[in-house]
Amino acid sequence: MKIVRFKDPSGYTRLGEWKGDKLNAGNIRYDLEEVDILPPCKPSKIVCIGLNYLDHIEETGREKPSRPELFLKPPNTLVGHLNTIFIPRKKKRVDYEGELGVVINKQCKNVAIEESEEYILGYTCVNDISNRDDQRKERNWVRGKAFDCAAPVGPVIATLDEVPSDAKITTRLNGDIRQKSSIDKMLFSIPELIEEISRYMTLEPGDIISTGTPSGVGPITEGDTIEIEIEGIGVLKNPVSLNK
Amino acid sequence: MKIVRFKDPSGYTRLGEWKGDKLNAGNIRYDLEEVDILPPCKPSKIVCIGLNYLDHIEETGREKPSRPELFLKPPNTLVGHLNTIFIPRKKKRVDYEGELGVVINKQCKNVAIEESEEYILGYTCVNDISNRDDQRKERNWVRGKAFDCAAPVGPVIATLDEVPSDAKITTRLNGDIRQKSSIDKMLFSIPELIEEISRYMTLEPGDIISTGTPSGVGPITEGDTIEIEIEGIGVLKNPVSLNK
Repeated sequence: MKIVRFKDPSGYTRLGEWKGDKLNAGNIRYDLEEVDILPPCKPSKIVCIGLNYLDHIEETGREKPSRPELFLKPPNTLVGHLNTIFIPRKKKRVDYEGELGVVINKQCKNVAIEESEEYILGYTCVNDISNRDDQRKERNWVRGKAFDCAAPVGPVIATLDEVPSDAKITTRLNGDIRQKSSIDKMLFSIPELIEEISRYMTLEPGDIISTGTPSGVGPITEGDTIEIEIEGIGVLKNPVSLNK
Repeated sequence: MKIVRFKDPSGYTRLGEWKGDKLNAGNIRYDLEEVDILPPCKPSKIVCIGLNYLDHIEETGREKPSRPELFLKPPNTLVGHLNTIFIPRKKKRVDYEGELGVVINKQCKNVAIEESEEYILGYTCVNDISNRDDQRKERNWVRGKAFDCAAPVGPVIATLDEVPSDAKITTRLNGDIRQKSSIDKMLFSIPELIEEISRYMTLEPGDIISTGTPSGVGPITEGDTIEIEIEGIGVLKNPVSLNK
């Protein structure tokens, strides 16, 4: 099942199921053209993983971490499918980073690896937009990773049965493939991430764990279109513009 | 005016005014003994400032920053006045840090210094509880600063007329004074912080900017009682216990 949140033609926010080219919600069928897709959940926090694919660790020139590298994106960062990513002006480099997002279904703390699946609603695509100018200069990546529009998410939450354990993850910039990997290449697995994070933080329904990006990150600029595709979930597509 | 959020004896959440030893809400007066004080607002994020008093910069041995050092605490960190701070087990050092919190009243972005007061609901006390074992080891302070119970806040939001511009800020551990400074000793002023943060992030009603701690930070442990007092606001008091 692919869970979708959207505004219907009256402006009412609905939760539904994405099937083919229709959205079904409360016994009504909507055409894709008549709705606005919203971020598929309302996280109180997005917990991101810094270095979780070996090929990306190599391209950053950093060491392989002994435990997951964590950082945070608050709710002001969210952008829905097809909405514009407004990036900060006057920065030399703002990058895309395609990632698998894990959406939490119920409140949890101190989750053991073997019970972690019980707390997963499903998977979504996340674009970890990164302002490198500031990221390089600050200790905690707030200007670098937590600015408005730094977290496009969607288009749906796919339940676990929809997504193969070696699902392909692909990033396309203006139609050209820039990142290509599979989610079984993560350094720390999803159950390990949930165990480690929930040891410190209570996770809430709708919270997202963004599991890190493979190699091939690169810059975006005004006029670009960036797509993150994950097998079994779909394509998260966003145009890019400079901040107002 | 001192704004207080609390659960009344029926369990209903109310917003009221703290006057003397009574809480007034919707034409009812409550005694302090019959209510549970809650965190005075519901932030979507707490944006914290790392090094904002010269004497604290000296005690950390770090350099004076050229712009505010930012980090984040998500909503899972909140603790109300008189509630227990549960600190992580098996850590060598978990510290208190007394701070002035600025509470935002309406959504804002790109706020200019001269209009910043328009977006302040008032001031509160924040205790920036810090798990040094992990803070020292991680790039972004998530395990170090964003664990559950890392942000006691309260007891009230005092409007700006209540708080002198040189208000004293005092931290007491088991009754002994450990931090003593005044809020006019900040390196970056509150208007400067609002301008800088809102350049990157939309601030929402109830969001808190925690403005940094003066010198005198130190460890807390099970059985301690920690109090942050700020002139014109009041005393934020919490017992400390080890995590369950």
